[in-house]
Amino acid sequence: MRTLKLTLAYDGTNYVGWQRQLNGVSVQQLIEEAFAPLVGGTPPSVAGAGRTDAGVHALGQVASVTVDTALACAVVQRALNVRLPADIRVMDVVEAPPGFHARFRAVAKTYRYRLVTSAVLSPFDRWFVWHAPGRYEIEAMQEGAVALVGQHDFAAFQASGTMVSATVRTLHRLDVRALAGEIAIECEGDGFLRHMVRTIVGTLAEVGTGTRDAGSIPRILASGDRRTAGRTAPAAGLTLVSVAY
Amino acid sequence: MRTLKLTLAYDGTNYVGWQRQLNGVSVQQLIEEAFAPLVGGTPPSVAGAGRTDAGVHALGQVASVTVDTALACAVVQRALNVRLPADIRVMDVVEAPPGFHARFRAVAKTYRYRLVTSAVLSPFDRWFVWHAPGRYEIEAMQEGAVALVGQHDFAAFQASGTMVSATVRTLHRLDVRALAGEIAIECEGDGFLRHMVRTIVGTLAEVGTGTRDAGSIPRILASGDRRTAGRTAPAAGLTLVSVAY
Repeated sequence: MRTLKLTLAYDGTNYVGWQRQLNGVSVQQLIEEAFAPLVGGTPPSVAGAGRTDAGVHALGQVASVTVDTALACAVVQRALNVRLPADIRVMDVVEAPPGFHARFRAVAKTYRYRLVTSAVLSPFDRWFVWHAPGRYEIEAMQEGAVALVGQHDFAAFQASGTMVSATVRTLHRLDVRALAGEIAIECEGDGFLRHMVRTIVGTLAEVGTGTRDAGSIPRILASGDRRTAGRTAPAAGLTLVSVAY
Repeated sequence: MRTLKLTLAYDGTNYVGWQRQLNGVSVQQLIEEAFAPLVGGTPPSVAGAGRTDAGVHALGQVASVTVDTALACAVVQRALNVRLPADIRVMDVVEAPPGFHARFRAVAKTYRYRLVTSAVLSPFDRWFVWHAPGRYEIEAMQEGAVALVGQHDFAAFQASGTMVSATVRTLHRLDVRALAGEIAIECEGDGFLRHMVRTIVGTLAEVGTGTRDAGSIPRILASGDRRTAGRTAPAAGLTLVSVAY
C-alpha cells in the first residue's frame, strides 16, 4: 500500500462542495470514482485538507489516499485527469510518507476572498466573486481585521447549528487590500470553522460600509454568539489557495 | 433621435456569436431585445464593431444604436444590464455624434489569443484558451509573426467559402509572448477577415511546434489559398479586447 498526496484545483460552481453528500455531486466523490479503475474497481477513501462548501473554489486543495497500485505518480495524475470533468484538475501527485493524512497533518491553510465593489460586474468574474457594489472604508476593515488575528475562540464566526465544541483557532494573517474595483481578503490560519472565512468577510464588509464599527469585533469574539457577527458572504467569492504541512 | 456608443464585455461560450443567426441566441439579439422596452417596444438595430464568432469573447466590443429616448446614458446602461444575462455586460454608454457607426467608423481593433501549453489546464481557463500542450519555439513564432505585420492580401487566412473579394488588410502589430505555461498572441489591425486571427494563430502554432517553417509565411500570403495556411485555432482562446475610433 502507498499513500499519495494530490494537489487539486477546481471550479466549485457545479458541486455540492468537497465532501460527499446525498443531495448532489461532490468533488470528493468524483475523485474517488476516478481512482476506482486504477485500484481494482472499488473507489478508495480520499481525504481532503479543507471541506470546501458548495460553490467554493480551490487552487491548491490537498487530498490524501492510501492505495494498492504500482503506477507512477505521473501516470496516476494523467489517468485521473482523463476521467475527471474539466472543472476538476489534479495539478500534482507525489508520494507521501505512510500514514500521511491531508487534513490531520495540515498545519496551515490559506483562503482568498474577492469582493467586487464596482457597479458593473465583469462577465468573467460572475462565478468567482461576491458582487456588492458600494463605497467601503478599507482602513476600517483593516482595523477590524487586526482584531481577528491571533488565537481566539471563533465560535461567533461559526455557522449556526454547528456542533463543534473546540472553537479556538489561530489566524496567522488576515489581509484586506483594495484593488481596482474590488477588495481582496486573504487569510491564513491553523484551521477554520464551518463558514468562518465567509462570516469574517461578511462582518468586515459591514464594517467597510459603516453598518458596524471596527471596535465591535472584540465584543463579537467575546460573545461567542453567531447572531452578533455579520452575514455569511456568498460562497462564490471564496477560494482555498493552499495548504501547508 | 440620438446615437449611443456602447462598450460591451461578454463571455461568448453560450452564444452563436455577435451576429443574429437562426440557429441560436446571439449577443446582438439580446442587446436589441434589452433595448426594446426603453424605446417603445420595438428592438432597434444595434451594430457591432466586430462580428465575433460563436465562443469568442469580448472585453471591449463596441456597438452603436440610434434610438428615440430621453434617458440619460447611465440610466440606459443600468436598464440594459438589468435585462441582460450576467454573461453579457454593458460596461459603458456614451453619446456619439449623429451618424456614428461602430463598424464603419472603427479604425483599429485589438484581439488577444491565449494558447495554453502546459500539460494540465486550470479549471478556471477551460472556456477561455486553446489547450495544446507541447514545446513551442517562441522565436520561430515571432519570426513568422513579423512576416504577417504590414499591409497584405490575407485571402489565405480567411475562412474557406467566404465570398469577400476585398481581402487586403493592414496588421499594425502581432506580438507573440511566452508566459508561464502559455503563449499570448495579441494583434492590432485596421480590420480582420472571417477567422483571420484564428488562422494566423493556428499557422503560428504549427511554426512553433516545427510542423512548418517561419519562412513559409510569405509564400502562404502570396498564394491567396486557404489550404496553404494552418488550422483554424479554436474560438474559445480568442477575445476582442478593444476597438479604436
